[in-house]
Amino acid sequence: MTETNKNRALVVLSGGQDSTTCLYWAIDRYGAGNVGAVTFDYGQRHRIELECAAKIAEAAGVPHTQLPIDTFSALGGNALTGDSDVESGVCEETGLPNTFVPGRNLIFLTFAAALAYREGYGTLVTGVAQTDYSGYPDCRQETIDALRQSIALGMEFDIAIETPLMRLTKAETVLLARDVGALEAMACTHTCYNGERPPCGHCPACELRAKGFDEAGIPDPLLERSA
Amino acid sequence: MTETNKNRALVVLSGGQDSTTCLYWAIDRYGAGNVGAVTFDYGQRHRIELECAAKIAEAAGVPHTQLPIDTFSALGGNALTGDSDVESGVCEETGLPNTFVPGRNLIFLTFAAALAYREGYGTLVTGVAQTDYSGYPDCRQETIDALRQSIALGMEFDIAIETPLMRLTKAETVLLARDVGALEAMACTHTCYNGERPPCGHCPACELRAKGFDEAGIPDPLLERSA
Repeated sequence: MTETNKNRALVVLSGGQDSTTCLYWAIDRYGAGNVGAVTFDYGQRHRIELECAAKIAEAAGVPHTQLPIDTFSALGGNALTGDSDVESGVCEETGLPNTFVPGRNLIFLTFAAALAYREGYGTLVTGVAQTDYSGYPDCRQETIDALRQSIALGMEFDIAIETPLMRLTKAETVLLARDVGALEAMACTHTCYNGERPPCGHCPACELRAKGFDEAGIPDPLLERSA
Repeated sequence: MTETNKNRALVVLSGGQDSTTCLYWAIDRYGAGNVGAVTFDYGQRHRIELECAAKIAEAAGVPHTQLPIDTFSALGGNALTGDSDVESGVCEETGLPNTFVPGRNLIFLTFAAALAYREGYGTLVTGVAQTDYSGYPDCRQETIDALRQSIALGMEFDIAIETPLMRLTKAETVLLARDVGALEAMACTHTCYNGERPPCGHCPACELRAKGFDEAGIPDPLLERSA
């Protein structure tokens, strides 16, 4: 087993609300000097996510790596890399959201682990949550546990995978963001499935975000800024 | 769980001796009409491997998909995608072969599973072997078992992963190749770490291959053809 420093953490940063909360959670827990961020350019339709991630990492003062993954788009069309309408939300054939790429998180976390291995991070942090489980089987704790095991064996790398949002409601995630000082950064995050900025307000992602801030009783800094 | 047809098999085909044996093993077991092959273009230094894989699949009469992965080379240099000398074979720092990319097989098999999911293959076949275990932790059966579990959970996809060479010596692999009718195709495979054709004969990969054919008492069709 490669020796690991579990107090150095690499955060998978998409540029969205949840991963940004995780970045600040990690900084709060490990100190900014022990935290890095990785973002995947997998051909996402909304390129603004990549800009958001870079800005957020810079503002937080942590090193940021962007890694390309050209495989998903080669694997075939899907809503988040293609041009199809995502508003319907669910694929009739499988019952899964049509934003689903099979195993996407398995790939993200395995590549993140490879980067962590090379750069001496002993912990990965990911913003997956099974509370607002939307049909993504790769966001559940038992999947993360199995993946950790396959990485530990396959890389001989005793890595930890922290999932601070796993069992939080969206409202609780907003309260956590406040507690770890991530609220200001929320103004830079991107959530809207339709890629609009200011956000469209009516896609499933915008509605879920709005519900979380509403229930937490905190105004969304992104909307404050846009207003 | 997605329903799977375990009698349709997707073979991870690198263009080398072992994966070619696996392709013919799968054809022997499931019938050519139920077998497909996938090859990854991950920026390997020896582009000849990709040509070999395509020729082998065509000669075997099975559909062949080539998928790009640009992430490994972005992750940093290593012997099989870079220009460093691979003859020394082992990285002094980690004791692992310097051809090691952390988690490479985890990534290959996860992407292969995503393709299998989309195309209705219920079985993956991979030529990894722990007998000639050369320091690759992602080639061991326990890693494959853990990975299968993480794919099953993360994709809700009850896939099987067959590893027909796992416990065979190199000589036994050659005998298996003979038994499943793969010997002729061996003339098209690529093994040499130095990318030479005819093979250099003195790199670790050439030596291991020669030893296997010697011990099996069968002439290597690749050398027969080159001679």
